[in-house]
Amino acid sequence: MKLLIANPNTSEAITARIAAVARAVVSPGTEIVTATARTGVPYIVTRAEAAIAACALLEMMAAHGHDCDAAVVAAFGDPGLEAARELMPVPVVGLAEASMVTACLLGRRFSLVSFAQAFVPWYRDSVERLGLIARLASIRCLDGGFNPVAGADEAGEAALAELCRRCGTEDGADVVVLAGAPLAGLAARIGARTGVRVLDGVAAATRQAEALAGLPLGRPAARAANGAAAKPVTGVSPALEAMFHAAAG
Amino acid sequence: MKLLIANPNTSEAITARIAAVARAVVSPGTEIVTATARTGVPYIVTRAEAAIAACALLEMMAAHGHDCDAAVVAAFGDPGLEAARELMPVPVVGLAEASMVTACLLGRRFSLVSFAQAFVPWYRDSVERLGLIARLASIRCLDGGFNPVAGADEAGEAALAELCRRCGTEDGADVVVLAGAPLAGLAARIGARTGVRVLDGVAAATRQAEALAGLPLGRPAARAANGAAAKPVTGVSPALEAMFHAAAG
Amino acid sequence: MKLLIANPNTSEAITARIAAVARAVVSPGTEIVTATARTGVPYIVTRAEAAIAACALLEMMAAHGHDCDAAVVAAFGDPGLEAARELMPVPVVGLAEASMVTACLLGRRFSLVSFAQAFVPWYRDSVERLGLIARLASIRCLDGGFNPVAGADEAGEAALAELCRRCGTEDGADVVVLAGAPLAGLAARIGARTGVRVLDGVAAATRQAEALAGLPLGRPAARAANGAAAKPVTGVSPALEAMFHAAAG
Amino acid sequence: MKLLIANPNTSEAITARIAAVARAVVSPGTEIVTATARTGVPYIVTRAEAAIAACALLEMMAAHGHDCDAAVVAAFGDPGLEAARELMPVPVVGLAEASMVTACLLGRRFSLVSFAQAFVPWYRDSVERLGLIARLASIRCLDGGFNPVAGADEAGEAALAELCRRCGTEDGADVVVLAGAPLAGLAARIGARTGVRVLDGVAAATRQAEALAGLPLGRPAARAANGAAAKPVTGVSPALEAMFHAAAG
Amino acid sequence: MKLLIANPNTSEAITARIAAVARAVVSPGTEIVTATARTGVPYIVTRAEAAIAACALLEMMAAHGHDCDAAVVAAFGDPGLEAARELMPVPVVGLAEASMVTACLLGRRFSLVSFAQAFVPWYRDSVERLGLIARLASIRCLDGGFNPVAGADEAGEAALAELCRRCGTEDGADVVVLAGAPLAGLAARIGARTGVRVLDGVAAATRQAEALAGLPLGRPAARAANGAAAKPVTGVSPALEAMFHAAAG
Amino acid sequence: MKLLIANPNTSEAITARIAAVARAVVSPGTEIVTATARTGVPYIVTRAEAAIAACALLEMMAAHGHDCDAAVVAAFGDPGLEAARELMPVPVVGLAEASMVTACLLGRRFSLVSFAQAFVPWYRDSVERLGLIARLASIRCLDGGFNPVAGADEAGEAALAELCRRCGTEDGADVVVLAGAPLAGLAARIGARTGVRVLDGVAAATRQAEALAGLPLGRPAARAANGAAAKPVTGVSPALEAMFHAAAG
Repeated sequence: MKLLIANPNTSEAITARIAAVARAVVSPGTEIVTATARTGVPYIVTRAEAAIAACALLEMMAAHGHDCDAAVVAAFGDPGLEAARELMPVPVVGLAEASMVTACLLGRRFSLVSFAQAFVPWYRDSVERLGLIARLASIRCLDGGFNPVAGADEAGEAALAELCRRCGTEDGADVVVLAGAPLAGLAARIGARTGVRVLDGVAAATRQAEALAGLPLGRPAARAANGAAAKPVTGVSPALEAMFHAAAG
Repeated sequence: MKLLIANPNTSEAITARIAAVARAVVSPGTEIVTATARTGVPYIVTRAEAAIAACALLEMMAAHGHDCDAAVVAAFGDPGLEAARELMPVPVVGLAEASMVTACLLGRRFSLVSFAQAFVPWYRDSVERLGLIARLASIRCLDGGFNPVAGADEAGEAALAELCRRCGTEDGADVVVLAGAPLAGLAARIGARTGVRVLDGVAAATRQAEALAGLPLGRPAARAANGAAAKPVTGVSPALEAMFHAAAG
Repeated sequence: MKLLIANPNTSEAITARIAAVARAVVSPGTEIVTATARTGVPYIVTRAEAAIAACALLEMMAAHGHDCDAAVVAAFGDPGLEAARELMPVPVVGLAEASMVTACLLGRRFSLVSFAQAFVPWYRDSVERLGLIARLASIRCLDGGFNPVAGADEAGEAALAELCRRCGTEDGADVVVLAGAPLAGLAARIGARTGVRVLDGVAAATRQAEALAGLPLGRPAARAANGAAAKPVTGVSPALEAMFHAAAG
Repeated sequence: MKLLIANPNTSEAITARIAAVARAVVSPGTEIVTATARTGVPYIVTRAEAAIAACALLEMMAAHGHDCDAAVVAAFGDPGLEAARELMPVPVVGLAEASMVTACLLGRRFSLVSFAQAFVPWYRDSVERLGLIARLASIRCLDGGFNPVAGADEAGEAALAELCRRCGTEDGADVVVLAGAPLAGLAARIGARTGVRVLDGVAAATRQAEALAGLPLGRPAARAANGAAAKPVTGVSPALEAMFHAAAG
Repeated sequence: MKLLIANPNTSEAITARIAAVARAVVSPGTEIVTATARTGVPYIVTRAEAAIAACALLEMMAAHGHDCDAAVVAAFGDPGLEAARELMPVPVVGLAEASMVTACLLGRRFSLVSFAQAFVPWYRDSVERLGLIARLASIRCLDGGFNPVAGADEAGEAALAELCRRCGTEDGADVVVLAGAPLAGLAARIGARTGVRVLDGVAAATRQAEALAGLPLGRPAARAANGAAAKPVTGVSPALEAMFHAAAG
Repeated sequence: MKLLIANPNTSEAITARIAAVARAVVSPGTEIVTATARTGVPYIVTRAEAAIAACALLEMMAAHGHDCDAAVVAAFGDPGLEAARELMPVPVVGLAEASMVTACLLGRRFSLVSFAQAFVPWYRDSVERLGLIARLASIRCLDGGFNPVAGADEAGEAALAELCRRCGTEDGADVVVLAGAPLAGLAARIGARTGVRVLDGVAAATRQAEALAGLPLGRPAARAANGAAAKPVTGVSPALEAMFHAAAG
């Protein structure tokens, strides 16, 4: 089995951290391949940045997705996820959607913890869009001081652990999701510091992609609903234009 | 007052129809400027196409938005709307959001009528996202046979009118929105054929943009919430990268 | 174009403040006519008072609405709005509904700020009824000390500005609506004090009424759905009984 | 125990039918007193009529409610219910609210059946407002041919029974509420014709009023939240103005 | 009229307190019979305990329900309520469902107050399931120190009263429900201490059961929807197996 | 890795079919152990039957769950799932919850198809409880003629395939879940007959259990929130009573 982990951020350092987490959780025999966005920003914080990242994500799917069994959109706002699902013949999951549904199977309410206040309204919208607002306990984010490319230092881990602890004791969360590719790999240490169950978003999405890839699913669902005739697509790579045409049937 | 009508489709013919409708409904003294997407597809039908269009929309905002008082995203799925709101210092409205809130001020329930079955789940998601699902009577779309670039012929108008009629009599709609830039300009004729109140999405969005532009709003709201430091933005025009940096503050 | 601004409060001083705000925001050539409730209370705070005001509102529509192009119910609970929509052949908007949908076009979440604690549950119900609860950041109201007929003095403005500031910084609001006719005219000054975008409910509703009046809408929607045969209506003015009969007809 | 059944319709014939149903279901020793609206229409079908009826309802409460233990607003749209709750020191229930919560205690989903198509959107709004939309199976109404003042003849009963039957077999309703004062007294005969459980809205509301009147409730809740200072109330009876002042006080 | 009050807790002391409250609120001539769970725990706090209690509840219905006119599930999580409704030919209400709908008829928002933090997520789920989340002001529970079998001492009453007071003043509740059989009988004293309207869950459910038993309901609703053929039921009493078979028709 | 598949039905034949499907989809090295309910009914159709099954499920967890890495509640209504989560130190998933979240990762809307009309309201409630009602396209069930113990014959498969086909073409489902343990193993054949993506509920739940078992989750979440002191538990096996005491901490 082969999984594509596509990082919509342009930072290779983040890709490396994601890949390490993914490789640690997959079953024996599952291969992880990675891609990093060629256009966009080092780490996505705003929706405008996510809009640019969505195009980069589709280009990564066209360039690297042809022989994978499932793919992961490795940024928590899931930029381009629905578009990729329309175009790809195999399952595609996003960090946000996959880790939130995983959290739902582990408890009644979950919290999201991340590293920038700008995520709060955006992640709340993601929860609403998924239809899981009734199961959200809280969203808590650091107020500055975190370098997403470098990752968490000791002070950052302590601050994140404190947020997780409050999600459990003050907000009633059964599970806390560490939300954001730059936080990949911290869940075990932070969970050990806090006594609350902490879920690594990258690990959860990877396991979900692997779970889906192992199901006998028959033909792709979204493509069936597409129904659009092939049209010229300007300003994208030939590989991506070909994916558009293939999906249009 | 100057309004930018940005067409995220690459078809100039659609831009021309939109511009004519917009110019017909604005108050005396309001100027309409238009832009057409440089990348993407002639007419957007899928979310993958909308993802490409969102990037094109941001480029249009960067290229043409600098001295306008408000802007309209002239495609019904509102591609790039939230991203544009983060970047633009003036109000930005989208066809879907603006025409649905206009419909809410005219009656308790509204229907959406458009020209392709592929829109049904997408537009339903748009209504949910806006929070107005309780006010949606129905979504009815043609099942093929409509050329969005050429626009409606007599048979197309008759078929759309029949859908509108059924929204009123069978689905309980107080107002029907003609959803999609390619349908611009048809509302009056179709309304006259059916006896139900039919709202032109382009006219509604233009009037909303004009209404917002005339309000004393002070500083832009979304920019205040942005909070992201300036970062390199790869693969976009210098003008768009400059907008990202300006919004980051 | 002629807009009727109907104040369901019996206070002429409030009508004068509303009219000044409305006249300041309309396009050149738009005429504002006003009416003040003949029955009810000087300023509405409870739902029982709003029930009385709804009847007064219908009487104002009957007395003054015959040649206007749109009408505004100028009290934030929108007393009588749905009833007036059934009876009037032109668009009718209310302060609450119109300013909340305007706020939705300006940002993802809005707050309401007003002058009496009794409004909190009522306004929350209004947001729910409109279907926009997911977009409400908060409702904050003064705890006494505000004279709605006299309007805000310096201390009142400072207190309202502090509430607005907290909506932005603590509650995550992108836009704050000053909710209530007695607050008309304060938005610009309060916005300047706080750094958050503050929307004048009266200005927003007036612009919305003007926007709707400029749309080609064809026949009235709500009347079409009425369907009731003409019946004697006891205890109302002959003009209002005539409106009932016309709408039924 | 004494219950006031206040009919917001002006038709005495409807009051008589309501009173008969109420007297048949109360416990021994419970007294029923009735009132009929002095202003408004013989039978309410539209929201504009309900707005007028709400004022009439408050006047009935002021004139007849002083020594009752609970009161019933005997029209299905519950005109004036929330206003009456603010003013009355004893529990007040409405036909719609009380019969829908009763239905919820008898099964998972309920349907509403009534006599005029104009009720469909209105009653749906009532269900939404109560928060019970997830428990609504359907709303089915006759399409003309029913005289609400005279009541149902054999053909009317058969037509209503057919609607009830379809609510059970096609819509999945566990319980059907006969919605509207003019339908009082038909539930037993219609239930016997259809095999589905049919609930008389007037009987349910009367039993609910009696249930509430028998609970030790202490001080009135709504009055506590009122908080408005006494103000002049123009255009109402002295008794109603006194109620406003008492509630404010 | 005869009402069965079935206590799914195994504690006879709690049954005795419940019975006293129930007997105090019913109409003259209504007889109360009680049953206490033979299996399970002295007082239910978790969902696992409630799962065991649901089976015990069905056994109590089979053993004691044959000639009652309605039954009450006397634990606030309503264990086994829906199952009992399928099997019983008469109305069955639960403490949670019945007291929450009663609260809805008394004000716009209600709070729940109980004696263990473990109830907070569970009771919140109950409110959501009933569809009444929009009417919930808050849930406040004691943090230890309460013996449910012994009942509240003076310190416990004071602590519960303080929670009720805060529901009214801080959370905007119009009514507070004392949630849980072990709290039966405290509402009057606690209401008198706090100035907020406090509803006894046991009293409310008993009045609701009595109200339903007095309605002419015809055939049982839930049984009609059952549709399952009789099957062997292993591990239950012969009386309960007979109820299963009778319900299956 | 070892997964416990616990069948809350008493039919061994159903257990055998479930086990075959589970073994076919797990990764190499994952062991499947099964258990069959000792009390209850051969196949669960009603909520009363599910209440009995929940107790049987807890007994199976106590008897067989001690050394598994995750467990599956193998009946679609998920009887006892939340109770089992409180008691078990490893992840527990149910057929309904796990297959619905899996479906959400594969498309925007899903349908449920099963074999008895009695499931329709129950399964709808399950979707609501999970918070995914906005993503439900439809629920379609056979109207008799299916023997759940024997499983589907050719006519049954054809009838189920026809329901699946209509979910895709008429209801807009992207994915159809075959809902119910007796349908285990049919998805591939039915999917091939219909052209719509069909998901086997048992396969999906098994893959989800395996995915969760492979995540580093630290301490159990639900137990942390339990907080109840150990109490005597009457009428259960010593093993189950011990689980209650262990979870209570």
